[in-house]
Amino acid sequence: MSTIAQIAANMKLESPVMAATSLEMRNDALARIREALLSNKEAIFAANAADLAAAEESGVAAPIVKRLKFDEGKLAGVCEGIADLIKLADPVGHVSLKRELDEGLVLVRETVPIGVIGVIFEARPDALVQISTLCLKSGNCAVLKGGSETMNTNKALFEVIHAAAVEAGLPATCLFQAEAREEISELLACDESVDLLIPRGSNAFVRYIMDNTRIPVMGHADGICHVYVDADADVQKAVDVVVDAKTQYVAVCNAAETLLVARGIAPKAVPAIAQALANKGVEVRGDAEVQALVDCVPATDEDWDTEYLSLTISIKVVDGVDEAIEHINKHGSHHTDAIVTENAATAERFLQLVDSAGVYWNVSTRFADGFRYGFGAEVGISTSKLHARGPVGLDGLVTYKYKLCGNGHVVADYASGVRSFHFRDLM
Amino acid sequence: MSTIAQIAANMKLESPVMAATSLEMRNDALARIREALLSNKEAIFAANAADLAAAEESGVAAPIVKRLKFDEGKLAGVCEGIADLIKLADPVGHVSLKRELDEGLVLVRETVPIGVIGVIFEARPDALVQISTLCLKSGNCAVLKGGSETMNTNKALFEVIHAAAVEAGLPATCLFQAEAREEISELLACDESVDLLIPRGSNAFVRYIMDNTRIPVMGHADGICHVYVDADADVQKAVDVVVDAKTQYVAVCNAAETLLVARGIAPKAVPAIAQALANKGVEVRGDAEVQALVDCVPATDEDWDTEYLSLTISIKVVDGVDEAIEHINKHGSHHTDAIVTENAATAERFLQLVDSAGVYWNVSTRFADGFRYGFGAEVGISTSKLHARGPVGLDGLVTYKYKLCGNGHVVADYASGVRSFHFRDLM
Repeated sequence: MSTIAQIAANMKLESPVMAATSLEMRNDALARIREALLSNKEAIFAANAADLAAAEESGVAAPIVKRLKFDEGKLAGVCEGIADLIKLADPVGHVSLKRELDEGLVLVRETVPIGVIGVIFEARPDALVQISTLCLKSGNCAVLKGGSETMNTNKALFEVIHAAAVEAGLPATCLFQAEAREEISELLACDESVDLLIPRGSNAFVRYIMDNTRIPVMGHADGICHVYVDADADVQKAVDVVVDAKTQYVAVCNAAETLLVARGIAPKAVPAIAQALANKGVEVRGDAEVQALVDCVPATDEDWDTEYLSLTISIKVVDGVDEAIEHINKHGSHHTDAIVTENAATAERFLQLVDSAGVYWNVSTRFADGFRYGFGAEVGISTSKLHARGPVGLDGLVTYKYKLCGNGHVVADYASGVRSFHFRDLM
Repeated sequence: MSTIAQIAANMKLESPVMAATSLEMRNDALARIREALLSNKEAIFAANAADLAAAEESGVAAPIVKRLKFDEGKLAGVCEGIADLIKLADPVGHVSLKRELDEGLVLVRETVPIGVIGVIFEARPDALVQISTLCLKSGNCAVLKGGSETMNTNKALFEVIHAAAVEAGLPATCLFQAEAREEISELLACDESVDLLIPRGSNAFVRYIMDNTRIPVMGHADGICHVYVDADADVQKAVDVVVDAKTQYVAVCNAAETLLVARGIAPKAVPAIAQALANKGVEVRGDAEVQALVDCVPATDEDWDTEYLSLTISIKVVDGVDEAIEHINKHGSHHTDAIVTENAATAERFLQLVDSAGVYWNVSTRFADGFRYGFGAEVGISTSKLHARGPVGLDGLVTYKYKLCGNGHVVADYASGVRSFHFRDLM
């Protein structure tokens, strides 16, 4: 059997061919994948049943088993996602600059696929479908490694997807599924062949990837999101936003972990919010001022830097928007942070000065998601400032190249002054 | 004295304030810097004279001494560059997406400065001026470390630039100059504070930086650029392009290192090109077929992976465009590669399938440069596919953030089906 290194090297060599495929062929592949998933659903569900049985046998907790499941509902969801993806514009071949540098010398900047992408993701069969179809639509080759708890489902889904893609005419090297955990470390060493790694999973896992490869990594480790309730907030809106941000889905990166409340409104807002959170079973950890207002667990310094991913929230009273901004920029993870206020000037200050991928006004942090932004789907959420930031959809899976066409133009003529540039934008 | 870590942490905290400065203030800073450089030129030239004396004393080669020099000509050049930079549009605050997700829920994607940038660059005083003014124009804070051979000039230039920037109202933390070589390793450890590193210099140095930091790195190590002379080439154009690409300036990343020639035209093209190169003092290293056509040094396998940066070129005969593409994608550094041909279809195939930041048709590779692309200036050239690729000007020094404004919108309403997204683009 080939090693991951050989497979990735082959992919790299073939990736320009994949990049040159037409939108029609890529969309046709997506349509065939959708049909093949539907017509092979019994085999896929059977594979999933085997994974679920193994998970239950080994005592995996019920909420996690739910995530492993791939049923009619999940199938309908991914098929709808593929139909939406087909409708999206081609991210490849978009010209963002066309400039005549001099007579007969024309520069064009055009989007092209990144090339070879490695995606390492959690045990969630729908994620495999979304990620592979996003990579194909954007003309990229991809090595996929999904969580081993859905090993059988991954294998069944991958075979169906890969066969349909090849049937549409895409190169056989367009997708490869790594199955063994050891293959992850092999993949990390492929910096000559793999252009981008997208790791999804626990903080520790993502940090491990970031620390052990020379390949550029896109993603996020922590998701410490904040809601700041300003002195000019509408208290009911604050209650709604905080309850949603904390409790709508606790185990995700865009859930709120810390609530900051302006001193002026704390006596009114903190009890109202704490009561609403208590109704949802949330444990509050408060600073001294919060403790004076409601019954709660005393917060320690560590709480301000903790991503609970559970029904726990830390609450701190601050002077106002400036202290909130400073706290968020220092303790947050630059993911998504929200202000609740009726004061437009204060909101503007917050949106300007908070240094995060998403800055929200009177909105729950839970909106930070590729689907909710209308991107069709996402491969992940990036807290890096380089390349893509925030939810990453098709746009984040392309780069660009410069094409320069002339008629024997040489730099010596410009250095000597025989010719000179006139820089005329043609678009 | 503060350590680099403390200085970078302070910069990080102040960077949102720098990011929020107006274009007027940033342009005013540039104008003041330009004036201050002119009015302090005697002190700067005196500092440079000390550096040049020290360099000559320690036996630095004449071409390098030329690069260290900062005289009236270089001063006029950087001042012209600043005047051009002032005229360029603001890279900050550019809205690239405005979408109503649902009634009253509006998403805006807007460019913002990256934040804190660390630039480590060679001993070239004009580079210090260009880099610092590009960072200021784009609203970034920067830690600068220039080559120690121009230590005195760097110090004199930096003091003038920093004072003028602060006078215009920019935060004092906007720029810091690191002076000691040990400070580079301190800087590499500042992954909590520094958002991006731009190293310039030798291959080994850039690789060292890439291998020893968790901070994202933008730049390039190798620059192995190719010219491919196709069977349908105009031989005179081929001679002109190859001579320029190889000899116009040999010690730079966009100079050509390897020439590929289609078998069909080799008997005519190789002798003509070899003669023209010999007239410029270039040593040719050829494969067996080239050796049969002209007197030359036999090339070894190693030559195809070598960046000479000198008056040496390797020449190989290939079947045609497909073998040329394969050779370039395998042995090149994805920097800049050119085809010479009169056949538009062949050129199109080359531009499509060569996986490099710059793909050129009938043009010398030496055009790969921010000034020549009309970017005003460049901080470097990137061969990475993430974020900026090719020459990096102002556009490469910004990222974006998503601003989402609503009126108490919560995700629970969309999950339950009470509300739904309608995704209406507002621009």
